[in-house]
Amino acid sequence: MFALNQWYVAGFGWEFESSPLVARTLLNKPIVLFRTPDGAVAALEDRCCHRSLPLSCGTVEERGLRCGYHGLLFSASGACLEIPGQEKIPSKCKVQSYQIVEKNQILWIWFGDEEHPTALQDPPEYPWHSDARYEFRGDIYHYDAPYQLIHDNLLDLSHLGYVHLRTIGGDPSTHMEADMKVHSAGDSVRVVRHMRNSKPPATYAEAWPFAGNIDRWQEIEFDVTHLRIWTGAVDANTESLDDPNRNGFHMRGLHGVTPETENTSHYFWTMATNLPPSGVSNMTKVFEQTALTFEEDKVVIEAQYQNLQRFGTNPQVDIHVDVGANRARRIIASLTNKQNASATTLA
Amino acid sequence: MFALNQWYVAGFGWEFESSPLVARTLLNKPIVLFRTPDGAVAALEDRCCHRSLPLSCGTVEERGLRCGYHGLLFSASGACLEIPGQEKIPSKCKVQSYQIVEKNQILWIWFGDEEHPTALQDPPEYPWHSDARYEFRGDIYHYDAPYQLIHDNLLDLSHLGYVHLRTIGGDPSTHMEADMKVHSAGDSVRVVRHMRNSKPPATYAEAWPFAGNIDRWQEIEFDVTHLRIWTGAVDANTESLDDPNRNGFHMRGLHGVTPETENTSHYFWTMATNLPPSGVSNMTKVFEQTALTFEEDKVVIEAQYQNLQRFGTNPQVDIHVDVGANRARRIIASLTNKQNASATTLA
Amino acid sequence: MFALNQWYVAGFGWEFESSPLVARTLLNKPIVLFRTPDGAVAALEDRCCHRSLPLSCGTVEERGLRCGYHGLLFSASGACLEIPGQEKIPSKCKVQSYQIVEKNQILWIWFGDEEHPTALQDPPEYPWHSDARYEFRGDIYHYDAPYQLIHDNLLDLSHLGYVHLRTIGGDPSTHMEADMKVHSAGDSVRVVRHMRNSKPPATYAEAWPFAGNIDRWQEIEFDVTHLRIWTGAVDANTESLDDPNRNGFHMRGLHGVTPETENTSHYFWTMATNLPPSGVSNMTKVFEQTALTFEEDKVVIEAQYQNLQRFGTNPQVDIHVDVGANRARRIIASLTNKQNASATTLA
Repeated sequence: MFALNQWYVAGFGWEFESSPLVARTLLNKPIVLFRTPDGAVAALEDRCCHRSLPLSCGTVEERGLRCGYHGLLFSASGACLEIPGQEKIPSKCKVQSYQIVEKNQILWIWFGDEEHPTALQDPPEYPWHSDARYEFRGDIYHYDAPYQLIHDNLLDLSHLGYVHLRTIGGDPSTHMEADMKVHSAGDSVRVVRHMRNSKPPATYAEAWPFAGNIDRWQEIEFDVTHLRIWTGAVDANTESLDDPNRNGFHMRGLHGVTPETENTSHYFWTMATNLPPSGVSNMTKVFEQTALTFEEDKVVIEAQYQNLQRFGTNPQVDIHVDVGANRARRIIASLTNKQNASATTLA
Repeated sequence: MFALNQWYVAGFGWEFESSPLVARTLLNKPIVLFRTPDGAVAALEDRCCHRSLPLSCGTVEERGLRCGYHGLLFSASGACLEIPGQEKIPSKCKVQSYQIVEKNQILWIWFGDEEHPTALQDPPEYPWHSDARYEFRGDIYHYDAPYQLIHDNLLDLSHLGYVHLRTIGGDPSTHMEADMKVHSAGDSVRVVRHMRNSKPPATYAEAWPFAGNIDRWQEIEFDVTHLRIWTGAVDANTESLDDPNRNGFHMRGLHGVTPETENTSHYFWTMATNLPPSGVSNMTKVFEQTALTFEEDKVVIEAQYQNLQRFGTNPQVDIHVDVGANRARRIIASLTNKQNASATTLA
Repeated sequence: MFALNQWYVAGFGWEFESSPLVARTLLNKPIVLFRTPDGAVAALEDRCCHRSLPLSCGTVEERGLRCGYHGLLFSASGACLEIPGQEKIPSKCKVQSYQIVEKNQILWIWFGDEEHPTALQDPPEYPWHSDARYEFRGDIYHYDAPYQLIHDNLLDLSHLGYVHLRTIGGDPSTHMEADMKVHSAGDSVRVVRHMRNSKPPATYAEAWPFAGNIDRWQEIEFDVTHLRIWTGAVDANTESLDDPNRNGFHMRGLHGVTPETENTSHYFWTMATNLPPSGVSNMTKVFEQTALTFEEDKVVIEAQYQNLQRFGTNPQVDIHVDVGANRARRIIASLTNKQNASATTLA
């Protein structure tokens, strides 16, 4: 059961540069994404209604997507436009389409419940992909683990000192003893952590010319389908960490966490960073270190999931760093319970 | 549930040239096939009755097959001939044998119901394997897909224009708009398709010196356990496609489709072709192109099956080319239903 | 269901030379084994009680094992010694520990029932690992097969003539017709086989300067969790095979067979051998041939298990060589039935 009536990340616009179509299962639904020659993006159920071949085995044409078995042609809205060799197209010859929007190079797909098949609001804005002060790059990771374990990981950055020693970690006690504040509002959670007068970790030291120790921040904003994580640092004791216009080194991460199935996930991420004072881009460095960091998370989270499967429902002990993650879990539980209740009422 | 009281293809005689025995699961039954030094072919349950080692881990000897664990020796009929170190052979010490016949280099195995453990008729004739005007070659493909999806594919050659563009395809509309006739008789279906005055596809053009456009035929005969597909062409407007003695380029394909399990299949095929006017064999060319064609089918059919598993029992829309395949499915359904009814009566 | 209140082999002490910790599932329980800097060996449940990461993803420290996700530190007894960043350690924050003893370089772990969580007796002695007259080496094999199939194999050495022709086999009829005696006492079975005046097999001939034919013995002692197999030979007609102080070539094998799950097993083995008259070690030769032999067994036993899964519960026919193995199976059945009965009484 997944939270519905949400915009989920389905992919990135640049994926169509290397392939005219992308097959991807999202929330248990096998979907084919493609861009038609007019530039619009479409999402169809990845199954021809004739003999069930994945439409992603077919070819993108001017008018839509043609099946690779017997050539049926479907439009971006799922209508069958042609059955080769047959004049009449039966009314039931069509496939389901999904509402999809490309915005800031992010593909947002709407998954609504029965009452809300089309979107209730616009997809989120993510201006950092087109902010002149920032460069960004991203990637897509597949997880053999349920999506909420990724939420847990991103909402509790205290693990940096144990998991990411080589990159953005640094002294473990700095992280475990960080000053942490957790706020909730509606279906969002905001975790802010400050680590003052700490030693810059490897990635920071390589990407920015800090004078010595740093005042470091981590601002995590959880929404149901994605997180924004703003991290960075200034030279210690030079600026207020509460000043939204503070200078220094900034990393702005987008983390789209979209369930593939109950037990597997897509992790769509980008990392934007600002130019250092030298004016020489540090994007490659920041991207490589971020990718390495997220690969470390993937190893841990998949090992954790395998162990959860081996040990079943043994109780877990909470510690101080779990506050944010636990709130996010309650939000998801509340949304999916509401859906259950609603489904019961309708039935 | 499989159609019983049928001769199924179990393999080809030439397989024993490279291995004295072959382990193969047919209709859910693990079987070891071997050829004894006197030349006869035998088929036994692939399990020693002592400690269950596959007999296919053993060695073929003069008198039969010896188990590779403790050396029990079984004859071609499944009788235990020797228990090393023990004089008495218990009466229950034996393994099941299957009726198997080698004919035209094809190994035919009988799968009967309880009332008909031995064959009701001789296995089919397939004279093209020993016709002096024809050369042939074949191969065995394993499919991760149920056997009836292969029937569907072979009974509906309209897919050539989409799946086999590189070899025997050609212009899609030629195939989708072919003149098609479907006949049924007993448990057989015959589909005849004529494509007049069409451009020769790659394989045809490379294998035969056509003058220009061709009149092309596809004659598909479905029997419960195998299909014969005669295809070929003559120069356009030179001969009647209904004349059984017409000249031109002939491809005669045998397609033994034997279920391994409900969801996996063996595809035993050979392709025979006649010498071109030059007298220089085109067999290698025809074989390679045919193998490539059938590999393309395998990709499509396995993707189709994976999708059927993902989407479950969603309804499918029929189109004009499905007539032959649907008749074959009704024949199989009728045969397996009869078996169910008969089993109920006996119980 | 496994026999409890037993010392099982969990590993070998030398494993920690190449890795500070070892993750291994034993009797369905995922366990992490490690050696603390003071030299003691510990065994903990392989799951952090906080967020379930395997503790084997962590690091061994002076005081114990630290989790690789958020840094919780656990002692050899499973107590949590530290939660970084948090003062109070909740009483339920701990992991299960297992009683483990290193003796003769063997790691013995106690698996008791609810009434006997700690050992009822000392672990077995195995002096041959520190006997000056013997050298030894060993290895650990993983089996995709249930542990009792390995018992069967080791208690019935008549298979040597069919499975191990290249090494310790020799003429099959020598093995199948060996003089065999089987004794039981308590939960032990002893099988003694004598093969007089037989030709030395390859391994024997290469490892020892026999004059010609040999008198050969196989003494197999089965205990619930491990077997000791003493084999060897003297020149034919030179010494009594019943004399415990007989000279000649000796191979003393330890076979710890520990279930990983119901259907997979760990096979911990060592082979000790005495120096030949030349005084030049034959250990490498004997080890290599033994490893090869046991790999042959693994191939057979895994094929056997795959076939047992394919064929289900079809009855098996017993032959003369099965006496010892069948007694061992009755012992295991009796022990596990007792446990069932006891569990019923307690419930």
